[in-house]
Amino acid sequence: MNDRPRIAVVGYGNIGRSAVDAVLAAPDLQLAGIVRRDPSRRDGIDPALPVAGSVDELGKVDVALLCLPTRLIPAAAPEYLERGIHTVDSYDIHGSLVDVKKALQESAEKGGSVAILSAGWDPGTNSMVRALFELMAPKGLTYTNYGPGMSMGHSVAVRAVEGVADGFSVTVPLGQGLHRRMVYVVLEEGAELDAVAERIKADPYFCNDETHVVQVGDVEQLVDMGHGAVIERKGVSGVTHNQLFRYELRINNPALTAQIMVSAARAALRQAPGAYTMLEIPLIDFLPGSRDELLRRLV
Amino acid sequence: MNDRPRIAVVGYGNIGRSAVDAVLAAPDLQLAGIVRRDPSRRDGIDPALPVAGSVDELGKVDVALLCLPTRLIPAAAPEYLERGIHTVDSYDIHGSLVDVKKALQESAEKGGSVAILSAGWDPGTNSMVRALFELMAPKGLTYTNYGPGMSMGHSVAVRAVEGVADGFSVTVPLGQGLHRRMVYVVLEEGAELDAVAERIKADPYFCNDETHVVQVGDVEQLVDMGHGAVIERKGVSGVTHNQLFRYELRINNPALTAQIMVSAARAALRQAPGAYTMLEIPLIDFLPGSRDELLRRLV
Repeated sequence: MNDRPRIAVVGYGNIGRSAVDAVLAAPDLQLAGIVRRDPSRRDGIDPALPVAGSVDELGKVDVALLCLPTRLIPAAAPEYLERGIHTVDSYDIHGSLVDVKKALQESAEKGGSVAILSAGWDPGTNSMVRALFELMAPKGLTYTNYGPGMSMGHSVAVRAVEGVADGFSVTVPLGQGLHRRMVYVVLEEGAELDAVAERIKADPYFCNDETHVVQVGDVEQLVDMGHGAVIERKGVSGVTHNQLFRYELRINNPALTAQIMVSAARAALRQAPGAYTMLEIPLIDFLPGSRDELLRRLV
Repeated sequence: MNDRPRIAVVGYGNIGRSAVDAVLAAPDLQLAGIVRRDPSRRDGIDPALPVAGSVDELGKVDVALLCLPTRLIPAAAPEYLERGIHTVDSYDIHGSLVDVKKALQESAEKGGSVAILSAGWDPGTNSMVRALFELMAPKGLTYTNYGPGMSMGHSVAVRAVEGVADGFSVTVPLGQGLHRRMVYVVLEEGAELDAVAERIKADPYFCNDETHVVQVGDVEQLVDMGHGAVIERKGVSGVTHNQLFRYELRINNPALTAQIMVSAARAALRQAPGAYTMLEIPLIDFLPGSRDELLRRLV
């Protein structure tokens, strides 16, 4: 037992697994344990790590990393915030973020706690890059080009389509923020590829993009968690045109999301009570170590 | 006369000129005027713009952009800070930044004002990118590769060498943070190229890098204010290796520096009294507009 802040990982999917690794690798945090619906399932978790059905069974917890499906975040976060536990999530529904943030702000004020929303790579660090580009060149166009890589949201949509036994969708960048969707499906017995492809292309997740549907025998053999993005801006600084900026990442998707959440947990411990996105927190607060040492090394 | 915050540009070299443009282009700031040693020199400045020898002649000033040689900043900033005027500088001597920041912190506390130090592209926005890379992949190596582009500091060093009538130095990236220096010189009457080249290569600015000295007839015809950098990191998120990040900019150097200073002026108006680097300020504070609108657009 040491006096490092104690972090709970809530949910044990791809991101939860990686979050456990990232907390254990952090020099200044410790893992309080894992919270999951069925704590009797161990799934290869180190027997030394506590697994509980509720955060209350884990002793003092400073920050809860909510590694849950995004639609569960607005209901799950207040539970923690109102009992004084900071939360970090990677909520990724852009359209409702501002409203969710307002709701979590109220919970955080009640509990004297901090919520950090949308701490992932997009939204999250990519949002920070878009802001950085605008402060350097306020006029101009920014394009965010995703992939190539598997899109979680689109893959869920594919699997819900009639006639699809299993499947996933890969996002391929075409430039200027346009994307191709490569959809790989295992058909249900008796399903027709043409009819399934038509249904996928009519789905709101796919109807605005160039979409190709490919029949395969086994999805598991094709899945790779690599992903990436390129953000480009050509803009104007003052009255000077043709200022060029480009940011690129090629990464393991759940590992990066989890690492960003763990860095955000550290930042949560350094903010006044309230709800924040990563844009609203100084970069230095995400990093371990003393402020002067960080400034000497990074500035 | 409107009620936008009033910005003074102090110094009228390359960066000062661009700073005037960037303040005039900002939707939420206004130019109070220009402060320079000899206010009778107009150098093509719009006659409608006040030019003064002291900031006191410009009426109310909220923020002073210190577009001065970097070594003058530690003495110049306190003058403004102690009379309650926020300052922004692009101080770029990495080794002494933390000490200078402490001194400006004292002045800022006395005057109830805000100092933002090292607001340029390196140090400045490049420092923010280095921090961003570390929060995403805490273990690994970051390389900052500068150029190709003219280095101001190295050019000043060249012109101080015996036998050099005029000259400048271009930084060329070789990868892994190593750089070649291409030095273009006009020789003084009777000077020998070989002897001058030897003196340049022995200078502390050049002795650690691969340096080539080329004799030319006229420096003015060769100077271009374009510059750039590539920052690369390959690192580890949690326990996942080979996470790849790359950032590249190709820009007009004084225009970008000046724009970053103007964005920092806006941020200065939003901080509590004290001294800050860009790493210590939330990204959203550098941008004009309402917080909710920015979050809707950028997150």
